[in-house]
Amino acid sequence: MPPALDALRDRLAELSDLSALGRLAAWDQRTMMPPNGAPARGHQLATLRRLSHARATADEIGGWLDELDGDGAALDDVARDVVRLARRDWDRARRIPADLAAELALAAAEGQAVWQIARAAGDFAAFAPALRRNVELARAYAGCFDDAAHPYDALLADYDFGLTSARVRALFDPLADALRGLAAEAAAAPAAPALDVPVAAQRAAVDAVLARLGVTPDSWRVDVSPHPFTSWLSAQDTRVTTRFELDKELESVLAAIHEYGHALYERQIPPELHRTNLGRGTSMSAHESQSKLWEDHVGRHPAFAAVIAAERGAGGHAVDPAALHAAITRVQPSLIRVSADPLTYPLHIVLRFELEVALVEGSLDVADLPAAWSEGMRRRLGVEVPDDRAGVLQDVHWAAGSFGYFPSYALGCVIAAQLWERLEADAGAQDDALRSGDVSAIRVWLAEHVHRHGRRLDTEPLVEAATGTAIDVGPFLRHVTPYARR
Amino acid sequence: MPPALDALRDRLAELSDLSALGRLAAWDQRTMMPPNGAPARGHQLATLRRLSHARATADEIGGWLDELDGDGAALDDVARDVVRLARRDWDRARRIPADLAAELALAAAEGQAVWQIARAAGDFAAFAPALRRNVELARAYAGCFDDAAHPYDALLADYDFGLTSARVRALFDPLADALRGLAAEAAAAPAAPALDVPVAAQRAAVDAVLARLGVTPDSWRVDVSPHPFTSWLSAQDTRVTTRFELDKELESVLAAIHEYGHALYERQIPPELHRTNLGRGTSMSAHESQSKLWEDHVGRHPAFAAVIAAERGAGGHAVDPAALHAAITRVQPSLIRVSADPLTYPLHIVLRFELEVALVEGSLDVADLPAAWSEGMRRRLGVEVPDDRAGVLQDVHWAAGSFGYFPSYALGCVIAAQLWERLEADAGAQDDALRSGDVSAIRVWLAEHVHRHGRRLDTEPLVEAATGTAIDVGPFLRHVTPYARR
Repeated sequence: MPPALDALRDRLAELSDLSALGRLAAWDQRTMMPPNGAPARGHQLATLRRLSHARATADEIGGWLDELDGDGAALDDVARDVVRLARRDWDRARRIPADLAAELALAAAEGQAVWQIARAAGDFAAFAPALRRNVELARAYAGCFDDAAHPYDALLADYDFGLTSARVRALFDPLADALRGLAAEAAAAPAAPALDVPVAAQRAAVDAVLARLGVTPDSWRVDVSPHPFTSWLSAQDTRVTTRFELDKELESVLAAIHEYGHALYERQIPPELHRTNLGRGTSMSAHESQSKLWEDHVGRHPAFAAVIAAERGAGGHAVDPAALHAAITRVQPSLIRVSADPLTYPLHIVLRFELEVALVEGSLDVADLPAAWSEGMRRRLGVEVPDDRAGVLQDVHWAAGSFGYFPSYALGCVIAAQLWERLEADAGAQDDALRSGDVSAIRVWLAEHVHRHGRRLDTEPLVEAATGTAIDVGPFLRHVTPYARR
Repeated sequence: MPPALDALRDRLAELSDLSALGRLAAWDQRTMMPPNGAPARGHQLATLRRLSHARATADEIGGWLDELDGDGAALDDVARDVVRLARRDWDRARRIPADLAAELALAAAEGQAVWQIARAAGDFAAFAPALRRNVELARAYAGCFDDAAHPYDALLADYDFGLTSARVRALFDPLADALRGLAAEAAAAPAAPALDVPVAAQRAAVDAVLARLGVTPDSWRVDVSPHPFTSWLSAQDTRVTTRFELDKELESVLAAIHEYGHALYERQIPPELHRTNLGRGTSMSAHESQSKLWEDHVGRHPAFAAVIAAERGAGGHAVDPAALHAAITRVQPSLIRVSADPLTYPLHIVLRFELEVALVEGSLDVADLPAAWSEGMRRRLGVEVPDDRAGVLQDVHWAAGSFGYFPSYALGCVIAAQLWERLEADAGAQDDALRSGDVSAIRVWLAEHVHRHGRRLDTEPLVEAATGTAIDVGPFLRHVTPYARR
């Protein structure tokens, strides 16, 4: 092995370890840390970020990469991808001046603090200056990538390398039109009655369902946090969270299954990619495809309802599987993204995508955002926005300076449905297996067709390799159509 | 402020943050981490250690220190101590060649793994080669400090800067002689009956007693771990643990109070020292004096027994305060250090000190250690060692390459008694306050006389500043004498 490759691999392993420590600190902050620990944790995370950035953008990496450029033929396939991604990551990170990076971090932290207060008060005007600052900085960030066709593409590349705003728009426009029609059909059908399940029964169900999926205490933790999330500290140290609210029916179980999907992706990355720059999920969309596959295609599968219902029975609360399935697939256009049903959920995303593209390209002013939001909700979902709290103030992403993140939520739904169709074509219909809670064939198929690649394939090449086709909204529409026509 | 001081302070803040992240990772490993996460955590901690060491020993620090050497008069008192300790730490760290540091870390990790197996099997011969390697490396480490009067002094300086083996021996010899006599007196007195308290009542007592001491969920965590310990992620994020064992009587409560003492030290360091090299407890002995003050002088105070007993009553288990106090101050020479009574505990330490000095100076061979242990236990404690598991294999310290650590356990007992006598001389007898669970005067006195100095005073100067005398075994002997004469 060339010495430059050794040196590069050592640096990538170091960066991987630092990244894991950052995830530990973030996980702890959201699950374990006493609240007064927050200011010091801010310092600790900032130091870690600054040091990681310095190590990731150091000059010597360029020297190793230059040496290795001539050695392509001598490297094996994995090493070639290590070098290719290292070049890409190094180049992208070095384009951002240190001052801009610091300003971005500061504005994101301040934006979130301002947003929390403004959201509680329903006061968009109080949030607007911080949002405007974040938009300006996002434009400055995009300006560092003058080879992008559209400034938004430069932002999108941090979440989903290779996708463009034009490509996303070409997928989202027909998806939104079709979903709008299906939502109208659903409005004419009778609504399934809601469930009301005690928290104790929900807890029993979460534990039992996760155990069925293979969650064992030797290498998993399951905790509670206000917003469910997943953290992977290594392939054998996976931490998911969920939340329990009496009026959210099965959200606790579905959220736990969703996070399991994220976690399994990271757990099934092959060991030879661990502690390299290839050893994680390739993109936000690919990650969300995994969580959505488990949430929507397993958790909401009519056959799996029997498993959830049985486990809920074990919690002392009997429920009919058919009624359960009807309740968790009920279609009801709503104001809030995070409580949207599986059919209208992508419409919330399409709206956010349109608006953030307009903000970034400068065709929409921050002051006009609330009106554009209301118009969009009416056009896309047919609902009226009563106030900014239930409207433009509901999500933290823009407050945190995250532009280009939202599309992955809808792309994840779309890709999940494609993968599921292909999985059943390859491995057979999963109805019988799911009825008995057996997900082994699903785990194996995903490991082979998705997880094993790590970052070696970007989003669209990964979908093509796994399904034989480009990203395509057809399977998702086929999947949700029955929800509209009962 | 000179630019070199700015640069130095920035680096020290960075090192402080990295150190906090290391403590978080270690805390998580001992309380939360799923067991299969251990190998990856090893990589993460090694990376953090390597990076911290590189940042702490970098050439540029020497440049800043050289610049600041001429500026002494321009600096305020705190800045002068920042520079003084930075010079000392930088100089000490740079004396260790990178290869030796790596060998030490590796031998310590391997030593612990070998020891765990050897201890379970009671097989000293299986442990001996790993121990021999650790002893050799400790001697090599000591050799990097050729200005030390005795090689052991170089090791001791990492735990208690300024103390020497000669000074420790001068304290320990008369202490051991006096304690041996008191233990003999105790053997002639009637033994107090043991307690047997259900775990649920212990849990209630731990929670209630810690609440009395000021432990609140906004800035503390209380968890369970096999070996109780304390971690401070910042002054407002303190994490203590305890353990619950049915046959250990009040160990859970006393261990929690002990850890509280460590925690309070770090919490009461003044804010202007935070994120500097002065912002932590000054030494192992000083730290142990804080835990022992709370454990022995508060937790084992006859007046405080009423508080513990009341809280235990709240747990549904009634107990008489006098019986409780008698049980937790019972003297009974034993084989195992961690379950020793408060009078004979230092005798275990004196033995370990003698043996590790002999190992390090080369006057005792590893092969002869079990025999020396048995002889020492007979001489110092009057007990017969039945096997190496209950003898030389009981502690992890030497397996982990920690030579010079043990004295702090006994010095902590000694210093705690000195501080307590002075505290009561200054603030009055605490009997009435402790009977009602009021520890506010104790907290205030410790903040003013011990905690506020951070690392600005080393162990012996700190004791002199707080008590007006050098380290002195008299107060400890006065404290434990009543335990022998009932």
